[in-house]
Amino acid sequence: MTTNLPAHPRNLEAALAHIQFLLDKQELVQEVVHKTEMTRHELVENLVERQQTEELRRQINSLHPADIAYVLESLPLERRRRIWELVDGTHDGAVLLEVSDAVRPTLIADMDRAELVDAAEQLETDEIADLVPDLPKDVVPELLEKLNLEDRAQLQSALSFPEGSVGALMDFDIVMVREDVTLDVVLRYLRRRGELPAASNQLMVTDRDGGLRGILPVEALLVHDGEERVADVMIRDPVFFHTNDSASDAAQSFERYDLIVAPVVTVHNRLVGCIKVDAILDLIQEISQKDLLGQAGLSEDVDLFAPVWRAARSRWFWLGLNLVTAFIASRVIGQFEGSIEKIVALAALMPIVASVGGNTGNQTLALMIRGYALRQINPGNFRYLVLKEIAVALVNGMLWGSVMAGITYLLYEQWPLAAIMFAAMVLNLLLAAFAGLLIPAALKAVRQDPALGSSILLTGLTDSMGFLIFLGLATVFLLP
Amino acid sequence: MTTNLPAHPRNLEAALAHIQFLLDKQELVQEVVHKTEMTRHELVENLVERQQTEELRRQINSLHPADIAYVLESLPLERRRRIWELVDGTHDGAVLLEVSDAVRPTLIADMDRAELVDAAEQLETDEIADLVPDLPKDVVPELLEKLNLEDRAQLQSALSFPEGSVGALMDFDIVMVREDVTLDVVLRYLRRRGELPAASNQLMVTDRDGGLRGILPVEALLVHDGEERVADVMIRDPVFFHTNDSASDAAQSFERYDLIVAPVVTVHNRLVGCIKVDAILDLIQEISQKDLLGQAGLSEDVDLFAPVWRAARSRWFWLGLNLVTAFIASRVIGQFEGSIEKIVALAALMPIVASVGGNTGNQTLALMIRGYALRQINPGNFRYLVLKEIAVALVNGMLWGSVMAGITYLLYEQWPLAAIMFAAMVLNLLLAAFAGLLIPAALKAVRQDPALGSSILLTGLTDSMGFLIFLGLATVFLLP
Repeated sequence: MTTNLPAHPRNLEAALAHIQFLLDKQELVQEVVHKTEMTRHELVENLVERQQTEELRRQINSLHPADIAYVLESLPLERRRRIWELVDGTHDGAVLLEVSDAVRPTLIADMDRAELVDAAEQLETDEIADLVPDLPKDVVPELLEKLNLEDRAQLQSALSFPEGSVGALMDFDIVMVREDVTLDVVLRYLRRRGELPAASNQLMVTDRDGGLRGILPVEALLVHDGEERVADVMIRDPVFFHTNDSASDAAQSFERYDLIVAPVVTVHNRLVGCIKVDAILDLIQEISQKDLLGQAGLSEDVDLFAPVWRAARSRWFWLGLNLVTAFIASRVIGQFEGSIEKIVALAALMPIVASVGGNTGNQTLALMIRGYALRQINPGNFRYLVLKEIAVALVNGMLWGSVMAGITYLLYEQWPLAAIMFAAMVLNLLLAAFAGLLIPAALKAVRQDPALGSSILLTGLTDSMGFLIFLGLATVFLLP
Repeated sequence: MTTNLPAHPRNLEAALAHIQFLLDKQELVQEVVHKTEMTRHELVENLVERQQTEELRRQINSLHPADIAYVLESLPLERRRRIWELVDGTHDGAVLLEVSDAVRPTLIADMDRAELVDAAEQLETDEIADLVPDLPKDVVPELLEKLNLEDRAQLQSALSFPEGSVGALMDFDIVMVREDVTLDVVLRYLRRRGELPAASNQLMVTDRDGGLRGILPVEALLVHDGEERVADVMIRDPVFFHTNDSASDAAQSFERYDLIVAPVVTVHNRLVGCIKVDAILDLIQEISQKDLLGQAGLSEDVDLFAPVWRAARSRWFWLGLNLVTAFIASRVIGQFEGSIEKIVALAALMPIVASVGGNTGNQTLALMIRGYALRQINPGNFRYLVLKEIAVALVNGMLWGSVMAGITYLLYEQWPLAAIMFAAMVLNLLLAAFAGLLIPAALKAVRQDPALGSSILLTGLTDSMGFLIFLGLATVFLLP
């Protein structure tokens, strides 16, 4: 694992640049061969090409599977295919596991059934379970046949846990010991067993029925006397999880209590596996990317180098929804065309009210979404939050409303118009604060992700209502 | 550490609800005492209040410091103060370390100098360094005086590393061994030393001058024979970092190579400390929250329960910027008031062009920001990305432009107006794609965070240009 690690992302960037340079060179030679049609030089050309291909193969296979995944993710589709063909079969499983969900299918599409079965066979059962959703349907039965009875049972159990549960994230590879043996016995057992599973800084202590009794930190084996019994030095009340706990809850516990490994038990309290910090690290990264891209109306995992048609389609849902909200706002304006015809300045001023409303509403929204994610918001403090956000909206509305009223007066020299600008700003900022508070709370109440689409809903509301408030006030007070 | 862990966030939520309930009860009693002014019953009332306070004290101090921090962060300021007073002095240091940067000053404000020095003294030097920026200036010299020579030197060195560097995140507490000793010698040394530092699944192997030679996984001590020498079983080329490496780069390496601990060396390759996965976990969480809140125009760390005035001020910068861009867009419309007076439908249709442009631009932006964060974008593939995003914008522009042109015809029954709608949508989506590609690239080129403010810049541009393109085309082609 530690050979040829670029280790620092900047070294990895250099490795990617080098591979791109080799690909450029190769394409150049191919172009020359193609253009000159020097068939008699074919032999020589082939030699050059073969040399180049060998250099690429050596380069890519010297990398860690996670780094190979990074290189593949950073290449456009056609180049990605050429590099993927050169990746050694022994890396295939690990690389498939490391690439993002969006890129995996583009690699799997280039593999035949035998290659896929071989790749999957290199992995642990919990890792295979992560691949299965992307594998062609006819590969899975063949794969199941090749596994031994225990692995097959584990794979089937791993597949049965819903996405986002601790069970789906868990690792089956644990070392179990009994509490009534001495540390020397444990040490002899470990020595016979050989290498420990990665990141196992603790052994699991179980009773005869597989019930979790505690954990034994590996360091206890080092610093305590070998005559002592496991029961005397183990930790009796470790943090543990149930298979059906939410994975993001587990992530919060890992962060809070600085965990490295934690046992996972079934509903009947039988120990079935463990959850490790490296899986948690990947999960947190995945969630944060999902939030970042999701806010912009992109699905959780997007291939930066997806083909145009696929990329375009992946953005349709939110674009369509955005078009609907924009259309509604447009119809609101349409109702006031008579007023705009009479006072055309309204057309120029109305987007300001809408835009500032959307912006302040999104600030409240972001605070609420984070508050829910950290579980800081509950019935006991919700009222306080509402009062506070309304007060903030009032302060900001009065302040920035005054600024805008002043500017409106400077531009149009009409005090009534400036007053309406002020009133509309205050009202739309209040409305935006309510929307920012209530949209995530409502989504939460119906058990949806409070972040999902909330920004588009909010902006739709503050746009339409901003236009309605501003044009409505103007129609009532400014027109005869 | 493992006593009374709520462990699951839902248990923690319950603990918070219980504390809120106790606070409610306490406030109720105080109110009754106040209202009835029963001075002769003072004694009894005091008894009730004292009991309640004791129950609160017991409840809060039974929690893990990270959980106390969570409770404090979830309470409005006045209640937060009351609970903070009840927290046992022995937890103070750990709690101050755990609370978010926005909440810490509200706690420190309630402590006197002696309490602060006591709290800081409970911590490791690298932890003290994290607190120092928030401590009153007169506390630091007193604190330095109380430390021994080695700790003082460590603290000063920790304070010298810039924020966001590996040095600022590193831990000084490492166990070093020499490569020429046997494993038995190491074992005897560890036994004499007692407990290992938390999360130390590996020992550092150094030469006589403190140069890093390799790492010795703790499990090697368990599974190898005691006669073997450290040099024979150690890992010679571990992933390591320099103190001046960027912390977020280190986080990517931790995620990629599933690291738990990694050595940190100076520019002269002398081992000075290590970086641990729990610090990385906190860092990733912090970065992702900064991204989430930063996009909405909130600074990286915000106290959900900040007082109104402070909360309002924290949102001014981006609100002000937003007002400027909205004002510019408004002036663009102002230039076309003559056209709008003649064709008032323009006023109703123009926000659609602006809104869809902003939305698609933000999609490209989010992809680019993620691509830069993962270091996937380089000169070798930037041209491909530009071509792809332009093509996607063209496809989406033609498609949704046609939809909107159709709707425009249905509403206003004017083919020329529908044609202008189509052309404006295509052009503004193309412009939005360019802006989404170039704004983060430009910020990156001047060594700024490509995410910072890019969404506000982009929306400002797509709004103004959307209005300009649509109203400009209409003026040229529809007006006599």
